[in-house]
Amino acid sequence: MPKRIGRYTLRLENSPAILSYAAVAGKKEGLGPLGYEFDKIYEDTTAGESSWEKAESLMLRDALSRAIEKSGYTPGSINYVFAGDLLNQGIASTYGLRDLGIPFFGLYGACSNMSLSMTLASVYVESGAASLAACATSSHFCAAERQFRFPLEYGGQRTPTAQWTVTGAGALVLAEDGPGPFITRTTGGRIVDKGVRDMTNMGAAMAPAAADTIKNFFDDTGASPNDYDMILTGDLGLVGSRLLNELLKQEKLDIGERHRDCGILIFDCENQDVESGGSGCGCSAGVLCTHILNLLRDGGLSKILFCATGALMSPTSSQQGDSIPCIAHLVEICANRPQ
Amino acid sequence: MPKRIGRYTLRLENSPAILSYAAVAGKKEGLGPLGYEFDKIYEDTTAGESSWEKAESLMLRDALSRAIEKSGYTPGSINYVFAGDLLNQGIASTYGLRDLGIPFFGLYGACSNMSLSMTLASVYVESGAASLAACATSSHFCAAERQFRFPLEYGGQRTPTAQWTVTGAGALVLAEDGPGPFITRTTGGRIVDKGVRDMTNMGAAMAPAAADTIKNFFDDTGASPNDYDMILTGDLGLVGSRLLNELLKQEKLDIGERHRDCGILIFDCENQDVESGGSGCGCSAGVLCTHILNLLRDGGLSKILFCATGALMSPTSSQQGDSIPCIAHLVEICANRPQ
Repeated sequence: MPKRIGRYTLRLENSPAILSYAAVAGKKEGLGPLGYEFDKIYEDTTAGESSWEKAESLMLRDALSRAIEKSGYTPGSINYVFAGDLLNQGIASTYGLRDLGIPFFGLYGACSNMSLSMTLASVYVESGAASLAACATSSHFCAAERQFRFPLEYGGQRTPTAQWTVTGAGALVLAEDGPGPFITRTTGGRIVDKGVRDMTNMGAAMAPAAADTIKNFFDDTGASPNDYDMILTGDLGLVGSRLLNELLKQEKLDIGERHRDCGILIFDCENQDVESGGSGCGCSAGVLCTHILNLLRDGGLSKILFCATGALMSPTSSQQGDSIPCIAHLVEICANRPQ
Repeated sequence: MPKRIGRYTLRLENSPAILSYAAVAGKKEGLGPLGYEFDKIYEDTTAGESSWEKAESLMLRDALSRAIEKSGYTPGSINYVFAGDLLNQGIASTYGLRDLGIPFFGLYGACSNMSLSMTLASVYVESGAASLAACATSSHFCAAERQFRFPLEYGGQRTPTAQWTVTGAGALVLAEDGPGPFITRTTGGRIVDKGVRDMTNMGAAMAPAAADTIKNFFDDTGASPNDYDMILTGDLGLVGSRLLNELLKQEKLDIGERHRDCGILIFDCENQDVESGGSGCGCSAGVLCTHILNLLRDGGLSKILFCATGALMSPTSSQQGDSIPCIAHLVEICANRPQ
């Protein structure tokens, strides 16, 4: 059963197992350093659909369908799917999932969706409320740009702090038992808003939320960064990652050499013209559900923290002059079930 | 611990208690039949804020703050708040909650948010993952109209099937123990899309989802409509309520005289010029967190089903010609803890 540790953290004594996972992505992500690990690369931004939003729905459904297929189960066996995305009213998820008939819990945590969904689904599996629960999320560069910033046709120049929304989707299936990896602890994020108003600097806005959650995890558990092979943040990019390290050093936490960021891992930031790195729900989901879970499964990693970060503003709130509230949810993932 | 019953339903053996609740609303809702039961009526649609969206945030925070205050606890004692709303990126919730410091799980179930949040929060409390969990949601007529349909200044004529988005918010606090009422079972909804494309007829779009969830609940549990004092749907309005009754009759389920709908209860539909009734997350939350929970607390009701319904489209999906996927999540609420 879940046990509360400290103010923010749960220990999952049964350690729900990640039974299977899958991720799909677009062409640019396919050309990145992790490209060969994706289950499928869509060469065309519309994926053959009539709009970018429909393409994103298709990718989310594709990632989830592949994850379920690899689990050896059918969609009819999955008790619940926890899913959300960046599009207004979460339409990538709702249209992507509508034909599957799986009870659906819609989430919104912006780019923190992957760890948000894993946090909730793991409590469902841990407590027996679900035998099998799925998590899924997605993002699409073209759909996100026109919704949050400018129409692509406008050709606006990007700032050096901007991040490139990943086109792609990731999904996984959690079960009571399986070969793992396993989810062993979760730390729920609080909303943190340090007054950043720049819609083209998500990393700076989100870093304080990541710092808050990571600090809360270490305070609650008494663990140390040295206990982990990797502390993986969602998509802070180059700018946000530097800030996170500085903020944590002020708290006497040095995660430096163990820190990796999905927004930096997914692209070759030097050569792929993505400014500060990748972002979007599909970024952390895509990196987790390929490279990271592969390493945990194959012995390359044994214990990590996965802390996806989200910026919770909307174009409306930004136009009304408000700053950007952010959040980060953290899950601890172990290759082996703790004894 | 939660026990799975059938395909879609959970029995909560510890029956989380609704420790406290509160709701606030706008002037028009205050003039409706339940107006005197709200904790506060805001006479001005901006509630003194500089925009309708900010007013909605303020109302959500006000409802939650009042619910927490009545619980005898402080925001710092609440383990998690499960919240969402209709605005793009859930900004009523994220801006409303950002100063409270409570770990936040963002949801999107459109107008089903209240029962969605209660479904998830009750599993957290049932399993010990939370000692105290809060649920909150809101909507605002002016903010919703300009986001989903037309600018108010346009003065578009409303169709007879249209529903009036409620301005208001509701919130409650769940605890392991308390005087009740109690949440005893939950049924997670599937996405149902029968092809309705009319953005001004949410009732017709949502009724099949409500019918699906209600039928699943009765199939899973073997219960009968006669076991309940009231079967309360979210906000189907006059049009959707008629359809729900017809759809369930085809399934040999007669909920007729026990059925009530929050969209019909909150307004005087004959005289308040709301066409088919009320809608919006604030509708079912407002009716539940005033009249219904008052009746359960004071002996006027002993056992009900609360099934809030949501339409999961966006203006973008509608403009792209797609139909409206819908969902309904159901919670069983009892005045007394079952023996």
